[in-house]
Amino acid sequence: MIVLGGPAANGLDDGIARNLSVELVKVDHKVFPDGESYIRIPRAVEGEEVIVVQSTYNPQDKHIVELCLMLEALKDLKASKVTAVVPYLAYSRQDRRFKEGEALSSKTILNLIWRSGADALVVVEPHKPEALNYFRGDVRIVDPTPAIAYRLKGDLTHPFVLAPDRGALDRARRLASLLNASFAHVEKERNRDTGEVKIGEVPKEVHGKDVILIDDIVSTGSTMTKVASAATRGGARSITAVAIHFLSDQASIKRMQESGISRLVGTNTVPVSGINVVDLSEEIAKRL
Amino acid sequence: MIVLGGPAANGLDDGIARNLSVELVKVDHKVFPDGESYIRIPRAVEGEEVIVVQSTYNPQDKHIVELCLMLEALKDLKASKVTAVVPYLAYSRQDRRFKEGEALSSKTILNLIWRSGADALVVVEPHKPEALNYFRGDVRIVDPTPAIAYRLKGDLTHPFVLAPDRGALDRARRLASLLNASFAHVEKERNRDTGEVKIGEVPKEVHGKDVILIDDIVSTGSTMTKVASAATRGGARSITAVAIHFLSDQASIKRMQESGISRLVGTNTVPVSGINVVDLSEEIAKRL
Repeated sequence: MIVLGGPAANGLDDGIARNLSVELVKVDHKVFPDGESYIRIPRAVEGEEVIVVQSTYNPQDKHIVELCLMLEALKDLKASKVTAVVPYLAYSRQDRRFKEGEALSSKTILNLIWRSGADALVVVEPHKPEALNYFRGDVRIVDPTPAIAYRLKGDLTHPFVLAPDRGALDRARRLASLLNASFAHVEKERNRDTGEVKIGEVPKEVHGKDVILIDDIVSTGSTMTKVASAATRGGARSITAVAIHFLSDQASIKRMQESGISRLVGTNTVPVSGINVVDLSEEIAKRL
Repeated sequence: MIVLGGPAANGLDDGIARNLSVELVKVDHKVFPDGESYIRIPRAVEGEEVIVVQSTYNPQDKHIVELCLMLEALKDLKASKVTAVVPYLAYSRQDRRFKEGEALSSKTILNLIWRSGADALVVVEPHKPEALNYFRGDVRIVDPTPAIAYRLKGDLTHPFVLAPDRGALDRARRLASLLNASFAHVEKERNRDTGEVKIGEVPKEVHGKDVILIDDIVSTGSTMTKVASAATRGGARSITAVAIHFLSDQASIKRMQESGISRLVGTNTVPVSGINVVDLSEEIAKRL
């Protein structure tokens, strides 16, 4: 078994190979002047089980195509089994037709990965686990909350976990249970055309608490800042905002920090700087 | 039958629909703040034959993923037949393993298009026609040289067509025949690691001629400028450089213009400004 690190492995290839005590091979890659990607597997893989590590953060489409190029090349070169580790799986929020005629992007991306040659797929905290059923091979889901709880534990005297919408409730429950904390959620409504977010009341229990907001994906951070402001008004003692996949740019991070959030926590499924980053290589390796 | 214009149709959707006298539908699309594309087919297509127009110029990977999203959505929405018109097909130069372990990118991209739901594929002047065999449906190739010859005719009193390498010879022959001109080629060697190009002797016949250089893809333009300089030294009367797919940026175009090339000609398979652009919608429509 070998680990093949793709152009968007974000360091997780090293960590996974180390945790599994197997050889790490970095894919040979470049981008031509016209913008096309070049991919080469620099080592024979015939009869070998290969774990490809490639996240699909921005530029998502380039990283998806690079993944497909690696998968099909590995199959062509007769690898015996190919497992795609996609720590952050792009396009997972478009998992149903909210409006008639919409592309089911989540399905299409999973089909591209499956059809390019992945026998198995490993994803960290997918947006909706059931949407992964579009992948026709073996699917394994990595739960990042134990590693996150381990990082948070000790720093918070009165932890209280708050999900920024009903869909994030199960995640909040998992984290709360690991922290021996209570949890709740706020109601959220998103206008799908403008992207504008409205949030409901924050529960009274946040008063005096070390509130931990947890969501799977944070991008502009508008939901996080709105919930954080409401929690501050509700008397929260401190606010920690956790996103498994922290897609925000520096301007959004700054806005979140200025909205009363004491600490921002993400993971290394995507590259992000200026916040606390939890390494998930051990959690991923455990599922391989 | 309807024509569906994709985000990278580059105006060819309008021209094709007009030439076929069928309804033009523009796909509903946007890019979310995090970089993901959104695709929606704004009209019922059940039982309808749909011609999707989407080129795959830079950013190639985004345009490829958008094409896959459109194709799978059309299939989901029960279009009776889906033809993908991909005027410029990206990744077509990586059509074999030049080095062991390389991805066969050309094959992977054609597989993605086929597997996403295209029943037929229409491509303008592919880099190597035989590489299109990786697409398992019906393939039609559009020859752009008649439209190009029509544009050039009349302006050139002593036309002589020169292919910048042996691989471009068939194309040069087609254009020369339409212009009642002679043709030849120069030898080219490209270092696949550095991309550096060396060219051989320019034939003596260029002396006093209106030389037309023709290549399928021009990117940095280094081959064109080298051949143009050599042709100028060989006594060419004027030099016209034609590329079917003109991928060059403005800096490269300027360099080409400063190298003694009198006129640059491209087509609308990709967006390009500051040169003569030949519209290919009629040629494409004829193959549908």
